[in-house]
Amino acid sequence: MLQLSRAQIEGLVTVDATSAEAVRDAYVAITDGRANLPPVGHLGFPQANGDCHIKYGHIAGDEVFAVKIAAGFYDNPAIGLPSSTGVVLVFSARTGQLEALLNDEGYLTDLRTGLGGAVASLALCRPEAREVLIVGSGTQAYWLARAFAALSDMRVSIWGRRPERAAALVARLGESGVTAAVAPDLEAACRRAEVIVTATPATEPLVRAAWVQPGCHITAIGADGPGKQELDTDLVAKADLCVADLLSQSLDHGEFAHARAAGLIAAADCTELGAVLSGRAKGRRRAEDITIADLTGVATQDIAMARCVLARAKGGNQP
Amino acid sequence: MLQLSRAQIEGLVTVDATSAEAVRDAYVAITDGRANLPPVGHLGFPQANGDCHIKYGHIAGDEVFAVKIAAGFYDNPAIGLPSSTGVVLVFSARTGQLEALLNDEGYLTDLRTGLGGAVASLALCRPEAREVLIVGSGTQAYWLARAFAALSDMRVSIWGRRPERAAALVARLGESGVTAAVAPDLEAACRRAEVIVTATPATEPLVRAAWVQPGCHITAIGADGPGKQELDTDLVAKADLCVADLLSQSLDHGEFAHARAAGLIAAADCTELGAVLSGRAKGRRRAEDITIADLTGVATQDIAMARCVLARAKGGNQP
Repeated sequence: MLQLSRAQIEGLVTVDATSAEAVRDAYVAITDGRANLPPVGHLGFPQANGDCHIKYGHIAGDEVFAVKIAAGFYDNPAIGLPSSTGVVLVFSARTGQLEALLNDEGYLTDLRTGLGGAVASLALCRPEAREVLIVGSGTQAYWLARAFAALSDMRVSIWGRRPERAAALVARLGESGVTAAVAPDLEAACRRAEVIVTATPATEPLVRAAWVQPGCHITAIGADGPGKQELDTDLVAKADLCVADLLSQSLDHGEFAHARAAGLIAAADCTELGAVLSGRAKGRRRAEDITIADLTGVATQDIAMARCVLARAKGGNQP
Repeated sequence: MLQLSRAQIEGLVTVDATSAEAVRDAYVAITDGRANLPPVGHLGFPQANGDCHIKYGHIAGDEVFAVKIAAGFYDNPAIGLPSSTGVVLVFSARTGQLEALLNDEGYLTDLRTGLGGAVASLALCRPEAREVLIVGSGTQAYWLARAFAALSDMRVSIWGRRPERAAALVARLGESGVTAAVAPDLEAACRRAEVIVTATPATEPLVRAAWVQPGCHITAIGADGPGKQELDTDLVAKADLCVADLLSQSLDHGEFAHARAAGLIAAADCTELGAVLSGRAKGRRRAEDITIADLTGVATQDIAMARCVLARAKGGNQP
């Protein structure tokens, strides 16, 4: 059994065209019938302010399948531990043998989420868009900025509720060779942005419908569970195109759940990202359209990352 | 992170009173409200004749929780690999950190299933019963015989569809210091048995209602998925007491599912094993009653085994 630490995995897979292609294919697998995706498992630890999610699945044709166990224990920082942790197990899809234990501590989730945000945004924004605003200044904002820098020539601005954290993130990005600027005012930044990506744990809308200009594309990645919301419900309702990585998840507990609960959108109004990426469904139609992608996270992405790690660990370069 | 191989785990936990008590408590946890047991995850690989089950959960008060990933790939023996494989991950219930990887290759499942069969049988049979018939000659029959030998003074007989396999099992048990005899004829053996434990992959009933004498207790552990059946539906219907480890599982895809589908029993006719073990529900009432326990396997048992392993690895002796 191959066993890799976070540092080893970081050395094998990062933001580049190969891993982006793996993530892109992971979305397409959902809509072309290749993905076997059982419901996400969940275990709550209310007394410890923690929870655990188990994401697993298989993409037809893949030689491996993956089980990701990710835990969030939100009081951990007080005792010097990270709040998020994770491990990915990779098994042979032909024999069931455990092939690898990826002790990535959540790195692969961060990576695939950042890549997914950029892949979705670049597929749905106007081709000439060059201004991306990232709303949020945490780990996910870092990986989004890295992904946009690797996959596009977008100019990156970052807004954070706490400006000093946004400034620290811009400095950290600079150390990684990525140029970004702090956006001091959220409304002004939204009005200027051609692409907005929200990556916060917000439970109340941050981005108002009135701030978003025609032609803007928004990708929301923060709302991954009940009670979370980053976009004005009116913004979702007025969008010309609503795209989700996995529609059932998005409508149940993602960003689109709120507009659906309010009766403003229905499943029939939405499209899945994989169908847009593969050309089975139409993406943006007009330059002035407002488009929204809601990404709640899907096991096919984890499988794709695990496959990338294994392929590179074995000396190849293919995902 | 602690990492233990099958051989190391075998050296830490085996059939004895301590592990039996842990298994007993695991059943009680289900019925006294301590167990948080999400639905079992399942992933099928029809083209490889394989499947994968993910069992996980937490027992309130436990410092750890466990995720067991068990795969069965039934064409493996043709390429020299075991058909069953498994790994148990143990996490802190206070911080979510991965504490241990138990690469037990299914050993803990075999052990807890054997112990569970003996614990259930001894709780429900007549106190003076001394003759146990094990139907089946595979790995599970071995561990059942070991468990009965460790926990009782029952005389063990073994019937197998292929007599040479039953004889080989009896020889193997002898090497482990356990005395057992081959039962050449299933009907005659059932008519004589005071306890019958079925541990086969049968998809058609093996044990007929007419063969089972008044006062007999039967524990069925083979039917752990749709399509499997070891006991005559009439036998289940005529039993005076039907007990399941987890009633929802048993009625859905365990031994009791067939009698329920035929309209012969209902959930209200059944009791859960933990309630009997803790005294909350009545077990056997009369010496002449026929009692049946159906064990489909529950994650609390896996948690209990993982807890035993960790406790002993850390130098203690408590489960």
